[in-house]
Amino acid sequence: MAVRVDLLISLDGFATTTDRTPDNPFGSDWSRLVAAYVGTRTFRERVLGDTSGEGTTGVDDRYARDYFEGVGAEIMGAGMFGLHDYPNDPNWRGWWGDEPPFRCPVFVLTHQSRPPLTMAGGTRFSFISAAPIDALAQATAVANGKDVRIGGGPTVVRDYLKAGLVDRLHVAIAPILLGRGVRLWDDLRGLEAGYAARSEVAESGTIHLTFSR
Amino acid sequence: MAVRVDLLISLDGFATTTDRTPDNPFGSDWSRLVAAYVGTRTFRERVLGDTSGEGTTGVDDRYARDYFEGVGAEIMGAGMFGLHDYPNDPNWRGWWGDEPPFRCPVFVLTHQSRPPLTMAGGTRFSFISAAPIDALAQATAVANGKDVRIGGGPTVVRDYLKAGLVDRLHVAIAPILLGRGVRLWDDLRGLEAGYAARSEVAESGTIHLTFSR
Repeated sequence: MAVRVDLLISLDGFATTTDRTPDNPFGSDWSRLVAAYVGTRTFRERVLGDTSGEGTTGVDDRYARDYFEGVGAEIMGAGMFGLHDYPNDPNWRGWWGDEPPFRCPVFVLTHQSRPPLTMAGGTRFSFISAAPIDALAQATAVANGKDVRIGGGPTVVRDYLKAGLVDRLHVAIAPILLGRGVRLWDDLRGLEAGYAARSEVAESGTIHLTFSR
Repeated sequence: MAVRVDLLISLDGFATTTDRTPDNPFGSDWSRLVAAYVGTRTFRERVLGDTSGEGTTGVDDRYARDYFEGVGAEIMGAGMFGLHDYPNDPNWRGWWGDEPPFRCPVFVLTHQSRPPLTMAGGTRFSFISAAPIDALAQATAVANGKDVRIGGGPTVVRDYLKAGLVDRLHVAIAPILLGRGVRLWDDLRGLEAGYAARSEVAESGTIHLTFSR
């Protein structure tokens, strides 16, 4: 069992985008940040339900397949679930659709008290107010010996990295400069100590870097 | 003739280090940042004068060879020459030794008025106070049709990138997190537009990324 992170970041280290507008709710930076990932066959099958067999099958797809394998529970911030967008709507079920791609217990870190949500496909969202290490203990307890993923966003990931709780950090670096947003790498001086680093470049130009211990 | 940049940066984008002390004048971060480069056969031959044939000969060495080829003039900031370390010593000849590795005219950007320095091996330092585009015109005029390199530091490089004056940007990214210093990528949102990006990973783990137009 390992604690894993997989994150998409820009060359200048940003894991969030800043150009969302009411007319363009995801923004165009987000499309560019995730383009290589959403172009993979695995993403199309697993997230979009597209069984046509279209999508890339190279290095990016290998990481996409790995992303969906062996995870028994996930922890994410309130923003990644979507609580910040509809903070006062008790009927809001997050922006991951009726059948979210996680297919495991997901712990959403929030100070809001909300009943759990059981979704199609095996995803069950629980909303908990807990320190990183305590949330990890809860996730580990239900992961059936599989990995626990710290899903995001970058602030939550950084909390886990700083606490020394992450065994494997994979970042897919898009060769674009966003210039603003939340940086993954802030205040992580010396993080590489204790990890082995490995990188490879995908056909798309995405740089996949993995710190493992 | 192209305007080129070659820079060593950390994974979190820092091109300078912050741990210099009187007892350790380069700091230990600097050694880690440049380790792959100074380990190459080309660096050992060209900078250290080591003709033993030792040093790495893989991807890092290919970039090191390329670094020293085809450059007809160089522009650097006062800090890279070493003016900030001995600002009031007219006899200070920079920290590049008696035979600097540039072997071409070098324009040092400074508001100090200093006479030019002719060094062994073909390097001639001129000290000029000029806007980026004007310094580039001076360098181009003496480059004999070869490339002009913007040598550094990161603030000078960023000035040239922002002004749209750089044709080829090569960064060697060491998989380490320095956490502080001067970031190359600050305020360069959208830089990738107009460039083609290409990356490869060296045996050392260094990621070589090149933006070309």
